[in-house]
Amino acid sequence: MIDQAMTFLDWFGVVVFATTGSLAAARKRMDLFGFILLGTATGIGGGTIRDTVLGATPVFWITSPEYLLACVAVSSAVFFLAHIPQSREALLLRVDALGLALFAVLGADRTLAMAGGPVAAVAMGIVTATFGGVVRDVLSGESPGILSREVYASAALAGASMFVLLHEGGAGREIAVIVGFSAAAAIRFGALHWGWSLPRYGARGADRANEVVSS
Amino acid sequence: MIDQAMTFLDWFGVVVFATTGSLAAARKRMDLFGFILLGTATGIGGGTIRDTVLGATPVFWITSPEYLLACVAVSSAVFFLAHIPQSREALLLRVDALGLALFAVLGADRTLAMAGGPVAAVAMGIVTATFGGVVRDVLSGESPGILSREVYASAALAGASMFVLLHEGGAGREIAVIVGFSAAAAIRFGALHWGWSLPRYGARGADRANEVVSS
Amino acid sequence: MIDQAMTFLDWFGVVVFATTGSLAAARKRMDLFGFILLGTATGIGGGTIRDTVLGATPVFWITSPEYLLACVAVSSAVFFLAHIPQSREALLLRVDALGLALFAVLGADRTLAMAGGPVAAVAMGIVTATFGGVVRDVLSGESPGILSREVYASAALAGASMFVLLHEGGAGREIAVIVGFSAAAAIRFGALHWGWSLPRYGARGADRANEVVSS
Repeated sequence: MIDQAMTFLDWFGVVVFATTGSLAAARKRMDLFGFILLGTATGIGGGTIRDTVLGATPVFWITSPEYLLACVAVSSAVFFLAHIPQSREALLLRVDALGLALFAVLGADRTLAMAGGPVAAVAMGIVTATFGGVVRDVLSGESPGILSREVYASAALAGASMFVLLHEGGAGREIAVIVGFSAAAAIRFGALHWGWSLPRYGARGADRANEVVSS
Repeated sequence: MIDQAMTFLDWFGVVVFATTGSLAAARKRMDLFGFILLGTATGIGGGTIRDTVLGATPVFWITSPEYLLACVAVSSAVFFLAHIPQSREALLLRVDALGLALFAVLGADRTLAMAGGPVAAVAMGIVTATFGGVVRDVLSGESPGILSREVYASAALAGASMFVLLHEGGAGREIAVIVGFSAAAAIRFGALHWGWSLPRYGARGADRANEVVSS
Repeated sequence: MIDQAMTFLDWFGVVVFATTGSLAAARKRMDLFGFILLGTATGIGGGTIRDTVLGATPVFWITSPEYLLACVAVSSAVFFLAHIPQSREALLLRVDALGLALFAVLGADRTLAMAGGPVAAVAMGIVTATFGGVVRDVLSGESPGILSREVYASAALAGASMFVLLHEGGAGREIAVIVGFSAAAAIRFGALHWGWSLPRYGARGADRANEVVSS
């Protein structure tokens, strides 16, 4: 039951990131093949680095090529439908938040299943959740958003940590998945809606004084 | 016989991409070591990601370091000879087209040999063909050309698909290699010569209307 | 004894690169989490690609998560202390030089230990030494410095070559490590101090003539 649900979530995450990749292609006014390439790279990027680093090779899309076909289908659909949403930018950010939350939990879960410890599982959750977006940004010639945006990777950190804590603490895997996913998604949606951000370096007195001196 | 030919083609692909990497170094007026580093990274980049993702590790240049030495030799030669061609830019594009076509077929072939299916083989052909160029562009600080150029990765798609279709359909491996390579090379050369491109997103009526409204 | 020393050096290299990553975060005025993410990615980036390409998976930080915790601690410390040094830029360059020299030797050593040959060991020394910095530059949206700076990767080449020569030539591993590290560090410090650089492509007569003609 839970394994089927995890497989469904995995599919959902791939489809969601394939959508954000092809929405980025829409913003750059690429051709159909650019949509497919960027959508697929974004959809499978996080899982590819996860499997490679864990040594779970050949990676998942070699043994389960239906993930590739799903990315192609989704990206093609976006090519013909992306003009419909009122605001592509807002849609992209919201869809991306779902993928971030899903892959944070799934990356941590896969690492625990392969006998990685809790710290490695949290780190891998963050990597899996953010790497697809890094690939998307680099391939489309944008500066990677992962470090410059409002609360982003820290939402993945929170979700993955919550999942690992509950999972290792003996709560069922179902509950750990639901709470971890909800925590990450809620934090990222909150950040998008209310513009949450952490205090930046250099907003402190000492540094401001330095700036006055050096200017 | 065919295995020897495949090994020769593999060498040819590495040398060809080492050449495009070092021609990019010439455009950036790097020093000799920059030529070697960029030439080698471009020459072995596609094969490295192919082997890593397939789990064929240690990757090919650990077990066959003569590939590294060939890249060093080619890049050094380019450092001393790159001023000879009339147009470095045109040469780079044509040499790159050969490498693209070669690695599209070789990446697909290697994947089939490691028991990957046809869809995964085509995807890996595209990855192998384009990743060396992505590494070259990222390291030399250029926006990756893979998605912004005229018909490029789609030529790799066509060549890899043709190879896989013929190979799986029972035509000999020789014929599949020749036809796949020729298809990819012909499409890419045609695109360079006649400026072929696929219709871009946003060239349609609905979107143009949106632009008028939003401007 | 030497194995303990190597482990210490490995730790030192990770800490040193975590410092350069978080100093780069300071320059970009990121938040605490950006420091941690960029510091950790820079600290473990070189070793991750080394282990992945060698097939030594799961990579080191999955089995030894204390490396991750050390990166988090160092990056957090930099967040609160980075305003102290007089010149962050100069500090970053010097700390980076130490990491470069350490990882050049350690990457080559690990490759020899996994039965790679001398050429592959030198190449892997360069990759391990430079890749953390490439990850740092790409994630922080900077053009990778590896190819555009004064003598940089060539210092790693010199150190890794010296180590491999001495090691394969029968000098003890201790001596090989010390000489290799010192050579790489001395060259890079010299380059920083006296502005050493190799002659660039296009500084030769023929090309200058071309420029005159074309302008």
